[in-house]
Amino acid sequence: MNQLQSDRRKFLKLMGVGVASLLAPSLWARALQPGNRKPNIVILFADDLGYGDLGVYGHPTIHTPNLDRMAAEGQKWTNFYVGASVCTPSRAALMTGRLPIRSGMCSDERRVLFPDSAEGIPSSEVTLAEALKSQGYSTACIGKWHLGVQPQYLPTNNGFDYYFGIPYSNDMNRVAKGGREIFFRPKVEYWNAPLMRNDQVVERPANQHTLTKRYTEEAIKFIHQHKDGPFFVYLAHNMPHVPLFASEKFQDTSLRGLFGDVVEEIDWGAGQIMATLRKAGLAENTLVVFTSDNGPWLPFMQMGGSAGLLRGGKGTTWEGGMREPAIFWWPGTIQSATVADLGTTMDIYTTACKLAGAQISTDRIIDGVDLRPALFGKGPSPRETVFYYRGRELYAARYKQFKAHFITQSAYQKENPKKQHDPPLLFDLGKDPGEQWDVAEEHPDVIAKIRDIVQEHKQKLVPGRDRLAKRLDHEF
Amino acid sequence: MNQLQSDRRKFLKLMGVGVASLLAPSLWARALQPGNRKPNIVILFADDLGYGDLGVYGHPTIHTPNLDRMAAEGQKWTNFYVGASVCTPSRAALMTGRLPIRSGMCSDERRVLFPDSAEGIPSSEVTLAEALKSQGYSTACIGKWHLGVQPQYLPTNNGFDYYFGIPYSNDMNRVAKGGREIFFRPKVEYWNAPLMRNDQVVERPANQHTLTKRYTEEAIKFIHQHKDGPFFVYLAHNMPHVPLFASEKFQDTSLRGLFGDVVEEIDWGAGQIMATLRKAGLAENTLVVFTSDNGPWLPFMQMGGSAGLLRGGKGTTWEGGMREPAIFWWPGTIQSATVADLGTTMDIYTTACKLAGAQISTDRIIDGVDLRPALFGKGPSPRETVFYYRGRELYAARYKQFKAHFITQSAYQKENPKKQHDPPLLFDLGKDPGEQWDVAEEHPDVIAKIRDIVQEHKQKLVPGRDRLAKRLDHEF
Repeated sequence: MNQLQSDRRKFLKLMGVGVASLLAPSLWARALQPGNRKPNIVILFADDLGYGDLGVYGHPTIHTPNLDRMAAEGQKWTNFYVGASVCTPSRAALMTGRLPIRSGMCSDERRVLFPDSAEGIPSSEVTLAEALKSQGYSTACIGKWHLGVQPQYLPTNNGFDYYFGIPYSNDMNRVAKGGREIFFRPKVEYWNAPLMRNDQVVERPANQHTLTKRYTEEAIKFIHQHKDGPFFVYLAHNMPHVPLFASEKFQDTSLRGLFGDVVEEIDWGAGQIMATLRKAGLAENTLVVFTSDNGPWLPFMQMGGSAGLLRGGKGTTWEGGMREPAIFWWPGTIQSATVADLGTTMDIYTTACKLAGAQISTDRIIDGVDLRPALFGKGPSPRETVFYYRGRELYAARYKQFKAHFITQSAYQKENPKKQHDPPLLFDLGKDPGEQWDVAEEHPDVIAKIRDIVQEHKQKLVPGRDRLAKRLDHEF
Repeated sequence: MNQLQSDRRKFLKLMGVGVASLLAPSLWARALQPGNRKPNIVILFADDLGYGDLGVYGHPTIHTPNLDRMAAEGQKWTNFYVGASVCTPSRAALMTGRLPIRSGMCSDERRVLFPDSAEGIPSSEVTLAEALKSQGYSTACIGKWHLGVQPQYLPTNNGFDYYFGIPYSNDMNRVAKGGREIFFRPKVEYWNAPLMRNDQVVERPANQHTLTKRYTEEAIKFIHQHKDGPFFVYLAHNMPHVPLFASEKFQDTSLRGLFGDVVEEIDWGAGQIMATLRKAGLAENTLVVFTSDNGPWLPFMQMGGSAGLLRGGKGTTWEGGMREPAIFWWPGTIQSATVADLGTTMDIYTTACKLAGAQISTDRIIDGVDLRPALFGKGPSPRETVFYYRGRELYAARYKQFKAHFITQSAYQKENPKKQHDPPLLFDLGKDPGEQWDVAEEHPDVIAKIRDIVQEHKQKLVPGRDRLAKRLDHEF
């Protein structure tokens, strides 16, 4: 496997001498010392934001100075993946550190949870909030949950001390009739989504214009209230998922139109949170991660985002569906670098548990890996594989920079059914991030290796019962 | 024109309060004071580098830490254009501050100069080197010239004290037979391009492996020799134009393959030059600009670059052909910002002349505008229009964020002839940088405005005689 050995060298090189030597030994020791003060964890999670929708990821007219600075000061990851290309399973992956197929939080019937869904995240799963809570963390979920709306599935029954947000997608519970055009001129009253505080509905319909602003303010308030820490804030914006709404201050201000207004308000919020941490003297003891749940919803045209140079978008197993911007920020501990190593949202789970000193379950397979070596500049990411599921079926797998597509299918169009590939399509994502040139013929060894990896994965896999299919006769 | 007024506001906003207030009054005064020390000017010019080929412009596997830092410390422009989508006319625009149609450095017959071309840049043009030389600058052209190889057209007869480089494209003077495949496994001996010092050929064929390295070293040497200044260094790399060659240190090191090796070596060179300026104490008196001559040469697949989310590439009047990365760096004077205002390489001409205190010819139309207000954070770029020529014909025009295509045509394919559009295709490049959604029906007022602008432009235009068509019976 000369090709792969050479590629391994390139991975190491990309981390760079600069990075490997950045962290002073004392900082590294401090960050790993178990007796030390546990770091706070803040996850900023966008919804349907594409790989190409931030300034520092190449967008020419979306102005994101705060996230750009976060990336310049911290680490900008360029090969970072989510666990699924749609909301519910992607969020389940982040919260459990496991592929959604294991928890059952994916389905071939209904791709996400809906207001009439009967079930949600199984109580047998150990959520990141539960793991951190066991280590004394105060925990808040602010924003979109989308892992179940029946009482036992809500955040406050899954490890979070506090919840404030819309418990599912902001386009659900639609009351206005019409087609896709209502998303092009959205009004609050077209939807009837509930805004909850803990397990109570406090506003209905939620005034979506001020959601991003209020979510940000709630996160800041929680940080202030728990500044003696440790705390875990999971701030999952409902935006820029359609329908798009921005607060008055951002409305009609972006060259990119309403989509830009909305992303620029999220960027503002990230800036406010970093400023809060700095002012409170917490920045040097807090890991902040920014990423999104899946790629851009392309059928919504200018109301959807952009995957930049990547192929496809939300709902697909092309790179545009599952590769996301990912920025890690921790002043004094994580130093400036662009990292092309592999990472996933499931690794955030494992890394956060390790940082907190939380036990990671040994009675089940955890897909997350510990990214601390890469974050601290001590070595490469241990991740070498990525699995791309659509619903309950494995469509593609990546090993180092090679990705094999066994099945491809466009996002939603019924006229474009799934297509099997044998041999699989093979792309070298290092040389060809846009998945344009099939190199299967040139690399039979790589295909054999990926087939072995997939076979091993499937042999060990115990699929969880489908938790998304069952419906009630009413909506929440 | 409410739409356009609103958009104007957005342009101003994007420059941002942050930028407008960045430059201390004393610095602004110093930079403008005519009696002051004239700033050095360094232009780093890449060849066929696409909008999406740098880390900070979104590429996931091309590692460009030096240019990324240059952008983070300086200004990253996201709506910056060249004067044509192919080499010779684009370079003529930069060197004269004028659209190539005025100087005659464009043709419908041969799109660029070749080794058998009889003519080159007219002596009546005032090159940027001539303008700066008149103000006491020492001037060096290092790298690709491509504005004529007969003696009177060489850099040393057009304002440059010193020249070192290949005077045209590195794929010219090919001696190996074969098709495009020889570009996929290039060897030095397949080409017979001359490497010149001043007006003498010093190496033939040029050892292209070490070109980027030697060009960088020559630039550094010139800077050291002229550190008492003022100096003008125009460093025009032959790369990443095919055939691609990197020096041993960079060969086979990039995840992006040979194309990445080559761009990463250019990035290294930029870092070396900035480090040289810092060490020599010159950084605070030197404007460094990095950009490229035109978009990626897409038919060369992985040996060509990427325009990121932009449509099309080299040879076309789509955005991917003519919009380029553009970074301005001048520590202490230009401060960190992302700028979505309009700019062009012709504006580099005018801005550099203004900085040097050079007279700008009044007996001819100069297309460049003075970007100092935007660079110094005192106001927006004065540019509101961009003209997109293909050869001698105007294909498209941009006014603020709207672009009208009167003619479209793919880059090279003969089977795809040019197509007239009446009404023109209209794209809102703010909302739709990928030119996907024609909005002509929604904005007849904008089309009328652009038609007026084009009519006025054409009325004033005196096309220069075609200087690219005439051939000799032998090659240089």
